[in-house]
Amino acid sequence: MLIVQKYGGTSVGTLERIDSVAQRVKAKKDEGNALVVVVSAMSGETNKLIEFAEHFSKNPNAREMDMLLSAGERVTSSLLAIALIELGCPAIAFSGRQAGMLTDNFHTKAKIEHIDPKPMQDALKEGKVVVVAGFQGINEFGDVTTLGRGGSDLSAVAIAGALNADVCEIYTDVDGVYTTDPRIEPKAKKLDKISYDEMLELASLGAKVLQNRSVELAKKLNINLVTKSSFNNNEGTLITGEKKMEGAIISGIALDKNQARVTVRNVDDKPGVAAKIFKELSDKEINVDMIIQNVGHDGNANLGFTVPQNELHKALDALKDLGDNFSVESDSDIVKVSIVGIGMKSHSGIASLAFSTLAKEGINIQMISTSEIRISVIVEAKYGELAVRVLHDAYELYK
Amino acid sequence: MLIVQKYGGTSVGTLERIDSVAQRVKAKKDEGNALVVVVSAMSGETNKLIEFAEHFSKNPNAREMDMLLSAGERVTSSLLAIALIELGCPAIAFSGRQAGMLTDNFHTKAKIEHIDPKPMQDALKEGKVVVVAGFQGINEFGDVTTLGRGGSDLSAVAIAGALNADVCEIYTDVDGVYTTDPRIEPKAKKLDKISYDEMLELASLGAKVLQNRSVELAKKLNINLVTKSSFNNNEGTLITGEKKMEGAIISGIALDKNQARVTVRNVDDKPGVAAKIFKELSDKEINVDMIIQNVGHDGNANLGFTVPQNELHKALDALKDLGDNFSVESDSDIVKVSIVGIGMKSHSGIASLAFSTLAKEGINIQMISTSEIRISVIVEAKYGELAVRVLHDAYELYK
Repeated sequence: MLIVQKYGGTSVGTLERIDSVAQRVKAKKDEGNALVVVVSAMSGETNKLIEFAEHFSKNPNAREMDMLLSAGERVTSSLLAIALIELGCPAIAFSGRQAGMLTDNFHTKAKIEHIDPKPMQDALKEGKVVVVAGFQGINEFGDVTTLGRGGSDLSAVAIAGALNADVCEIYTDVDGVYTTDPRIEPKAKKLDKISYDEMLELASLGAKVLQNRSVELAKKLNINLVTKSSFNNNEGTLITGEKKMEGAIISGIALDKNQARVTVRNVDDKPGVAAKIFKELSDKEINVDMIIQNVGHDGNANLGFTVPQNELHKALDALKDLGDNFSVESDSDIVKVSIVGIGMKSHSGIASLAFSTLAKEGINIQMISTSEIRISVIVEAKYGELAVRVLHDAYELYK
Repeated sequence: MLIVQKYGGTSVGTLERIDSVAQRVKAKKDEGNALVVVVSAMSGETNKLIEFAEHFSKNPNAREMDMLLSAGERVTSSLLAIALIELGCPAIAFSGRQAGMLTDNFHTKAKIEHIDPKPMQDALKEGKVVVVAGFQGINEFGDVTTLGRGGSDLSAVAIAGALNADVCEIYTDVDGVYTTDPRIEPKAKKLDKISYDEMLELASLGAKVLQNRSVELAKKLNINLVTKSSFNNNEGTLITGEKKMEGAIISGIALDKNQARVTVRNVDDKPGVAAKIFKELSDKEINVDMIIQNVGHDGNANLGFTVPQNELHKALDALKDLGDNFSVESDSDIVKVSIVGIGMKSHSGIASLAFSTLAKEGINIQMISTSEIRISVIVEAKYGELAVRVLHDAYELYK
């Protein structure tokens, strides 16, 4: 098997942990697999470098920032290769450039444009484990670029695609994807499998295991992703295409505490008004999530939507700038609870079970929005954890 | 003027010191100069990375070691460029590769083969200060290489040569080159000028300001080198060709405490025996320095030489391996005191003043060796500092 592994910052956070990663990599190699290992910077290193840069400038030059930030992953990849070679496991460290990672020119948030797989393929043919500095590439000018938050995951998935790997294993400090946050619901179960689309919904709803960009790329490239812990030998969760999924109706419940609700009253109920509002918000790069518009009467309508809490202020300012006679209300004391599952597509009654379950607990639903595989509700913040637990029970996710 | 500056590890050892380097660079730029600034890693960083590597291996893979060690200079060059840009001084950070630094393939002690000056020239034309990560380049395979100890000085001198710079300024934590170590002789004076050859002798004799490789390269490329402190605005010392030198007979006195003396008795006084001994030592990479062979009698000769103290054990083993009936004595309790000056070439009596000065103090000379511009004597260790002081006085270097 050709396996791409990725180890995150905590997994390589100390020299001893790098030792243990090296042992783990060697064991897989000794089983006869070919391996490419993508590593992050040791945990804390990237933040340290950012603090260094911020000593000099509140808005450090992006090109130089990328050269700075790429240093951490280079250190880890060199150290892991040194450790592997010492264990008698041939290995070679590659920077993003050496791994053939070409990106566009958007420093600090570059997109991968192309991977030249030849250098990695050559090293694999020589029987070497290829250790790649994640998070980085070079642009057409030969300048170092970085891929932004979660960039090392993205490097790993893209490399898996370029090499046509059998699997891409993402190692973190958690065992995999759970039906919900085990700190909220101790009966939460680790999922063996989940579809790309479900994972995308969960990730955008606050599940921290994987970032959307990596899952999207894995889906696009049809890469089998496995997320697992580098601290034990548990199985992990396979994230894959829908066809391989079995019958679970609901995969998980997510709680997002980072939302605020905005209600705009007395909106003229005629075409173009809502569009004007959302264009203004979008121009100001405010991420509007749920949107609800009530059918109006007396020529007026009410418009409700949610934004990330840290963008609420900006959103309210934007509405003021529109200068219309809106009456605007906002509420940060809310949370979004979401039920995610591809089974919803073919099952009816999923939503009504959610509504009746919450009603039974006296939890008032302020907003509802649904997608093909998701139901999200906005409830008062204090009910968030309770809502997660009763829904987890209602859909029997503990089974 | 086109100026190449190099700042060593202590000069960029903290964020505040990088601030002050940025101010210094900007001031020179504002005077209308074009600048290339070569930086070392922040002091302690390279040693930290070496310790990291040694956690995994006593003999870390050299290729990976180079990728590891190159990280420190990349961080410093990015930070200094960020600081300069923030000060309104256009700047760009270049890695060794981006600065066009091509080396041979000897990882961890690579030699510079060629510098492509185009990228630096283009950036200079755009009015930018070019900040280069010192100590590193790439080889023909695109792998990162490092230049060994003192490598950043070497980067700076080579870049000065490639760009045909007017001067190469090497900033450290000392003011320049002194007639002797001021900690030994408080009357020691800073030299305004010294020739390449004198500097080479002094550097090889323990003066820590500059390493031989950089001075040799400066001599070869005929680069005016200036060594000065980044902590004040004192003048520094110009290291340049002989023709520009004035009449000082002696430039300095050096003390080398890192030598051990080996005496081999009963060596067959016939051709080839000494050669055999020194071939054996050279094969084992032992750096033999002073060599003296007494004219023999009774078909035997005595052979004396010095080696660095940390290679003494290896040297004695090598002599044992030769298996001959040598009687070998060694003594680590010695030092080498050297008098250096190009004036010796045209003045007689220099050596005899040294010998009589030492004799007057009752300091016994165990070995003597001379070059065209140097006299070195081996004396008992406890007399080292005294010898330096009385010679400093005798040659009136305090003037």
